Formats: sequence, C-alpha cells, structure tokens
Amino acid sequence: MSEAIEFSAWAHERARHFEWLAETMLPKPGQEPKRLVGAMRYAVLGGGKRIRPLLCYAAGEISRAPAERLNRAALALEFIHSYSLVHDDMPAMDNDTLRRGRPTTHVRYGEAEAMLAGDALQAEAFAVLAGIDDPAAGMRLVGTLARGAGVFGMCGGQSLDLAMVGEKPDEAELARMQSMKTGALILAAVLMGAQAGDWDALTPETKTGLVRYAQSIGIAFQVVDDILDCTQDTATLGKTAGKDEKDDKPTWVSFLGLEGAKARAESLLNEALEALALIGRDPAVEAGALRRLEEIAHYVTSRTH
Amino acid sequence: MSEAIEFSAWAHERARHFEWLAETMLPKPGQEPKRLVGAMRYAVLGGGKRIRPLLCYAAGEISRAPAERLNRAALALEFIHSYSLVHDDMPAMDNDTLRRGRPTTHVRYGEAEAMLAGDALQAEAFAVLAGIDDPAAGMRLVGTLARGAGVFGMCGGQSLDLAMVGEKPDEAELARMQSMKTGALILAAVLMGAQAGDWDALTPETKTGLVRYAQSIGIAFQVVDDILDCTQDTATLGKTAGKDEKDDKPTWVSFLGLEGAKARAESLLNEALEALALIGRDPAVEAGALRRLEEIAHYVTSRTH
Repeated sequence: MSEAIEFSAWAHERARHFEWLAETMLPKPGQEPKRLVGAMRYAVLGGGKRIRPLLCYAAGEISRAPAERLNRAALALEFIHSYSLVHDDMPAMDNDTLRRGRPTTHVRYGEAEAMLAGDALQAEAFAVLAGIDDPAAGMRLVGTLARGAGVFGMCGGQSLDLAMVGEKPDEAELARMQSMKTGALILAAVLMGAQAGDWDALTPETKTGLVRYAQSIGIAFQVVDDILDCTQDTATLGKTAGKDEKDDKPTWVSFLGLEGAKARAESLLNEALEALALIGRDPAVEAGALRRLEEIAHYVTSRTH
Repeated sequence: MSEAIEFSAWAHERARHFEWLAETMLPKPGQEPKRLVGAMRYAVLGGGKRIRPLLCYAAGEISRAPAERLNRAALALEFIHSYSLVHDDMPAMDNDTLRRGRPTTHVRYGEAEAMLAGDALQAEAFAVLAGIDDPAAGMRLVGTLARGAGVFGMCGGQSLDLAMVGEKPDEAELARMQSMKTGALILAAVLMGAQAGDWDALTPETKTGLVRYAQSIGIAFQVVDDILDCTQDTATLGKTAGKDEKDDKPTWVSFLGLEGAKARAESLLNEALEALALIGRDPAVEAGALRRLEEIAHYVTSRTH
C-alpha cells in the first residue's frame, strides 16, 4: 500500500473505533433524561473528521500511552469539540442550520435543549477523564483539557471572534484569535495524547516540539478551512459553503489571496515536520512513533473537506 | 453569643473569604479576552448565598480536609452553580432579567457572551480542581463534580424541568426533577468537602449519612424557595417574586399548600439532623465536626431570602 492509503486505512479504523467508543460511553437512547440524552448523542455521533481523537492517538505513541487512557482522552476532547459546535451554531452565535450534512442540534432539539446538551457534554468530558486509572496522569489530562477549553483557550477565542464582527482585524489578530478558538484544543489533543503515557520521561525539547507541531497544525487547519470555504460546495463540506465571504469575515484567503493561502499551508506543513524532526532526537521516543503525526500533518494540509 | 448569631458570623466570614478567593482566582478585569473575563466576573462576583461553598467547608471538617483543597472545591462548585444560573436565565430557558438584584448576565453582556461566560466558567471549575496538590483527592473531586453537573445531575434536571412545561407532573416527578436540578450539586458540595480530606478513613455509614443529609437539605432548599416565592417580594429576594404562580409552575406550595410546605420543610430538617446523628457515631469523626452542617440545616429551613 502507498503511505497515503495506509494512513487513510488507519484513520478510518481509528474513526470507526472512536464511533464505537462514543456510542458505548454515552448514555443509551431512551435512557432518562431522554430528550437531553438524545440531543447529546445527536451532537457527538454520526460523523465528523475526528481530528482531535486522531491527534491524541497519534501523540500517544510517543509516550507509549495505554489504550484505555487514550480512549478516555480522545472521548473527552471530542465531547468538548462537539459541545462547542452545538453552542457555536446557535442563533445567538453563528446561527448555522447545517452541520455534518444534517440539521444542527438546536434546529433538531430546540435552543434550550441544545444549550443543555452542550453543557452536559462538557461535564461528561471531565467525568470520562475522572475514570482514568492513574490519578497523576488523570490530573494532567484534566488540567490540559480545562485550560484548552477555557477562558484563555477555546472560549476565549470564541469571544475574540465575536468582538471582531464589524471590525477589520489584521493578520496577527486573526492568528491570535484562531490560535485560541481552534488552536488551543488541537494543542490539548496533542499534549493529552503524550500526557496519557510516560510524560515525565520526555525531554523538554520533545515537549517544546509537540507544542510547535500542534501550533503549526492548528493554524494550517484554519488556513485550509478558509481555502475550502471558497473553493468547495456545500454538499462536499457538509456545512454551508461560501459563508465567510457572505458574512464579510476576515479569512486567510482575504489576507493572502487563494495562492498565498495555499503557500502558507505548505510552509506550516514544513514547520510541523521540522518540529517532529526535533522530537525524533529524543532517546525516549521509539523509531516509528512519529509516523502518524507526520501523516496527520500531510492530511490536514491536503484535505478536500 | 447565641448559636444563631455565632453561625451567622461564621457564614458571613466564609462568604467574605470566598468572595476574596474568587476575586483572586478569576482572571483580572481588563485582562484579555476582556469582554469574556468581564462577563465571567460579573456572573460569579457580587453576592449570592454561597450555600454550596458553605456546605463544602462545613463537610470538610468531618475529614479534616486541608484549607487549600477546600478552597479549590468551593470555587469549582460555585463556578458551576454560577454558570448554570447564567444559562438558565437566558431567553431560550427561563428568560429572567433580574438576579441577585442586578440585570442578568445576558442582559448586561448579550446572549452570545453570556453563553460563552457560562461555558468558560465550567471549564475553569475543572481547571481549579486540576491545581489540587494530591492527585487521588483531585480525581475524586473531578468525578464528583462532573457527575453532579452532568446529564444525570444538574443538566439532566434542567432538561426534565423543560419537559414539564405545560405538563402536570405529580409530586414524585417534581421531587425527582429537583433532586437532579439543584439536589445533585448540593450533594456534590457535601461529598466534595468530605472527599477533599481523608475520605477513605470514613465508614460506609458516614458516607451514607452524608448522602442522606445532602438529599434532605437539597429538597428542603427547594421547598423553602417555593414558600419564599409566594410570601416575599422582589426586593427581598433579589429576583422576580411570584414567578412560579405566574408561570403556572408546579411547586411544593401548589402540591401541599403553604402550611403543608412549611411542615414538609420541618420534617426534612429533622431527617437531615438524624442523618448527622448517624455520622456522629463514626470514631473517625471528631466531636464538634458536625456543628456547621447542623447549623446550615437550620439556616436553610429558616432563611427569609
């Protein structure tokens, strides 16, 4: 198999595994409180790229993290990501009606239940981490996830995004907002994968390398998102295409042009690969442990939806 | 000093201490992201009865919990409680405009920022717990708080409350909804106080006693809330009075009548005190350690706002 096909098979298997895991760990359909359980399952199950779980599983190979802990970290990350989409799609925020090719959660369940489903998913994220066997590893994961999701992470980025409406932010402001809004949880995903294993055995250079890798991937993900928003159609994306331009939102394409944005994605890919090369020098990191992170970097910058 | 005055002085001191603590641990005014930080501080600071922190500090005496861990548990509990008020007050839920004598958070900061402030406060609750020195205690607290706040706790109760609109629930359904909506976090407060200390030294009977105490207090708190809603005015309550009857909501007063509700509060007080008597037999529990929990039970059932 070619590398790309082999990666695609791995990613597909991991995404299927994650779907099974989430299906198993979420409350069952029909269980009380029925409406809330239904809305939570609707928000999490049924697709999505599962980038954060993939990053978490891939980073776990660096520190030989046990599968059970990685599963819990991956679930917690995706519960947080899913809740943020539910709240972000609501009328008070982006007012989106389509997500992953289906009506958004508040369209399907009403605004009140959607807000609660998001709230409950955030609580469940931490409940899942509380089940981790090793308290020291569990506490590291709780701290990393909470910081990634909170006021100086994802929520803070959303707030800065709101503040930009009607403003003309410069490139640095856009980058800063995105590094919090989406970057913080991507960073948490990479760190949590490594922290689920023998974190203390890793060198400071490796830890720095992981942060640099995650930061590059995080921005690259946004740059590619902006490129896709103006080059793909709604059916391919599973969400409303062309929305950025229609909303007069500043994007990487509006700052750099389409070709400039593509070149930026390429240079961010190179930065991510350089960061991994740094990690490769750590004697605690086994040969081959970086392969999936490399492949994810290529995937993030070459994806078509 | 009489017991009631002495308790009142303790509760006042704890509430002031808590205010200082929250002031210190929340991001500072003017810190970026400014709007979000402002909304979070507005939601938490400036009053409230701080019942959950009081219960947490009081229960901590049973297991001789260290002050630093109790502080973090109390903060986490009140961050969760404050976020739930912010989201509950929003137009999609209860549509309340007055809380603690001031405009609600969404009235002051807008709906989008209020939703984010609630989300960020939930994340900060777990970030605060992640700073606890002892990982085993920290993980117990994370699990208890997450379960209290989640789908089978507070959020689940809110969802059942929504489902009751326009329905005629019976007394058992009302009790079940409230045991989740407010009872679950009150239970978490009592358990977290005890779990912040030497939890493993307590007997199973003591742990059962704590649960029974918290459950009685939790219902009593609601019964008294319903009594106050129809006997006090808006200025005394700091929130809109007479709202239950106006909204045609089922309450303990509508089920039991005003005198019946008062009798119920009295019998719940007795149940709470009996549960404490059970705990008093545990050799690991020092004489005097139950005093504050007893006083809180009296306070909850005799409060006037």
